[in-house]
Amino acid sequence: MREVYLDNHSATRIDERVLVEMTPYLKALYGNAQSMHTAGGRAKDALEKARKEVAGLIGAQEPEVYFTSCGSESNNLALKGIAGAYQDKGKHIIVSGIEHFSVLYAARRLGQAGFEITYLPVDKYGLVSVDDLKKAIKPQTILISIQHANPEIGTIQPIKELAKVAHDHGVLFHTDAVSTAGIIPVKINELGADLLSLSSSQMHGPKGAAALYINKSIRIVPQIDGGIQEGGRRAGTENIPAIVGLGSACRIAKDASVENSKKILQLRDRLISELPRNIDYLSLNGHPEKRLPNNVNYSVEFIEGEGMLLFLDQQGIYVASGSACTSKSLKMSHVLTALKIDAAIAQGSVLMTLSKYNNDTDVDYVLAEFPPIVKRLRDMSPLYAYFLKTGKRQEAGPGTDYKHHQE
Amino acid sequence: MREVYLDNHSATRIDERVLVEMTPYLKALYGNAQSMHTAGGRAKDALEKARKEVAGLIGAQEPEVYFTSCGSESNNLALKGIAGAYQDKGKHIIVSGIEHFSVLYAARRLGQAGFEITYLPVDKYGLVSVDDLKKAIKPQTILISIQHANPEIGTIQPIKELAKVAHDHGVLFHTDAVSTAGIIPVKINELGADLLSLSSSQMHGPKGAAALYINKSIRIVPQIDGGIQEGGRRAGTENIPAIVGLGSACRIAKDASVENSKKILQLRDRLISELPRNIDYLSLNGHPEKRLPNNVNYSVEFIEGEGMLLFLDQQGIYVASGSACTSKSLKMSHVLTALKIDAAIAQGSVLMTLSKYNNDTDVDYVLAEFPPIVKRLRDMSPLYAYFLKTGKRQEAGPGTDYKHHQE
Repeated sequence: MREVYLDNHSATRIDERVLVEMTPYLKALYGNAQSMHTAGGRAKDALEKARKEVAGLIGAQEPEVYFTSCGSESNNLALKGIAGAYQDKGKHIIVSGIEHFSVLYAARRLGQAGFEITYLPVDKYGLVSVDDLKKAIKPQTILISIQHANPEIGTIQPIKELAKVAHDHGVLFHTDAVSTAGIIPVKINELGADLLSLSSSQMHGPKGAAALYINKSIRIVPQIDGGIQEGGRRAGTENIPAIVGLGSACRIAKDASVENSKKILQLRDRLISELPRNIDYLSLNGHPEKRLPNNVNYSVEFIEGEGMLLFLDQQGIYVASGSACTSKSLKMSHVLTALKIDAAIAQGSVLMTLSKYNNDTDVDYVLAEFPPIVKRLRDMSPLYAYFLKTGKRQEAGPGTDYKHHQE
Repeated sequence: MREVYLDNHSATRIDERVLVEMTPYLKALYGNAQSMHTAGGRAKDALEKARKEVAGLIGAQEPEVYFTSCGSESNNLALKGIAGAYQDKGKHIIVSGIEHFSVLYAARRLGQAGFEITYLPVDKYGLVSVDDLKKAIKPQTILISIQHANPEIGTIQPIKELAKVAHDHGVLFHTDAVSTAGIIPVKINELGADLLSLSSSQMHGPKGAAALYINKSIRIVPQIDGGIQEGGRRAGTENIPAIVGLGSACRIAKDASVENSKKILQLRDRLISELPRNIDYLSLNGHPEKRLPNNVNYSVEFIEGEGMLLFLDQQGIYVASGSACTSKSLKMSHVLTALKIDAAIAQGSVLMTLSKYNNDTDVDYVLAEFPPIVKRLRDMSPLYAYFLKTGKRQEAGPGTDYKHHQE
């Protein structure tokens, strides 16, 4: 059976070239980068080469790149580290309501510790409003954290404008670029972020490595205390093989991102435009244009995402329904809830995230296999039966944008 | 040139069998363990198999094993997580003065946040006294953290007795077993620890994976907030390849630890007994019997550890001088300082940590190459010149135990 992996938001295949570069550090070059001997020096050289490659992707200076173990750790370090360092200045933090859970729950934790957290609303496409941000800033605001793009609905935020508002008010700005780095251009100077999170496993690097860019003028309180690694800002033996992989992935992404992006965009647009020709009552979640080139998120009315996910799985098609972190919790996505999409529709969301390893045959396969699954599930759906009988939806709500196939 | 790696405290070579088991997860099996599809299920199965293997090594129940990215993270989670969860009960924590920096600096951070920290002294061998611990406990003590063994001087603490004291006073007990797990028996029931840290990179597993055992009756505040991974106690996409490697390393260590330990012990004892036959004015740091089977730590009087390290490196012999985390800081080891060893002597420490990949030819090579290096360095040493001229040491102090080769 064909396997079509469309869950590249959750994890990506390691690029073979990346693995080739990592392999020596999984074998003979196993030294600790902090050791003074030759074996340590080899590890240290690899560490600093990787730092240069990460810095190169985002246009940062090398000492501004700090390695962590995952995007969640980078986001926690950004929020809690800045909170710890600047709490004397104020205890107010602003995040959007559709951030990754590692931002939202880090913020919630800070809320429990006496910080005031403002959760910005988004419009029906998931966009944060610059005006809303302006209104939310207070004299005691110390940090604003808004993701570059939302990995679930693909919506790309106006980071440059949002960061400018932050800076106009003397507030630090962090952006979670885990779903954009390596996919679309992510340049510190263009975005204007003071802190930026990125992760290896989202860009065909290995799991276990991520980075936090921290502008050199900024203080931060480490969250993992201990050794002198990462300038004292993140203790723990450096995971050299994974960090080498992250560096390699960044270099490859930088060199090929335009070409890959173009290819992936074509596949995405085929799915977005052709799925509604074969499946009725689809609504696209997220912004139609300001959107990640690899993101397709459709709500399929009258059925649940879980059922689609499992039936698609049986055909070797791997997709998600909501954030990877909650796909097992089976709760309704907090992102779709924030878009004020009716629960009945939001529950039928299917998230497909493409990568450079997908091709037109994959898309053909999905276009062939998906519609019969939807038919099968709808045939079992009481909501659909009610709709067929009455012409009415049981729980329709605002915020939807039907793409009903009219023949 | 022969390469003899004797810095296995800082990092170990990945066992080939471990790498074989990891490799599929670095290639085709790249799914996210939280994804509901088949690719996710494969990752989840691997994750839980590894959890079982780690639990098997330490005799824990599987749900009590939580994966982290490194030993430092495990130690930070233990201290800060318990502090956060039990601060209503009291704000006093006890650690030994010779803990790893990830314990010491996590404690210091808690000290800055209003906790009272007691640093227990150690005797000249590095042993914590059970009586000292009893005296240090207060009604508001919530946690005691004492390492199973010290990685620098090899001294093994009487954890069972220390943990009993903790429990007699209703206090939780954490032990950092990073330098013992996979090397000597580490069994939760025998040690009586409520929390225990272990790390993959110290036992021929890959970097990037570690674990914290948390007794099932214990609450803890996560330090990386976010997704539902690790029961909500450690967010972030699980580093499946590294975790698979940790599990594999634990299983291999469990099966072969007695045999390996015996072999390593013989090598260690050759170095400990034969080095003083060829080098004058050596003092063994750490306990002569209650000692890790892989640890040799000699102070070589009149010269500095750094010089020896670099000259040994030129002969392909990789050793450490002090903790891996400070080997580049060139400060005097906090461990040797705590033993009240005279600074002049402590600075000449050489730490050799053996592994199952060392053999008698390695030891022969070290025994041949090391003495001429010492001679060369001493010939340049003003301290040695003064001693030869006057028969007096310039800065001798207490706590040393000379093994002067008498011919």
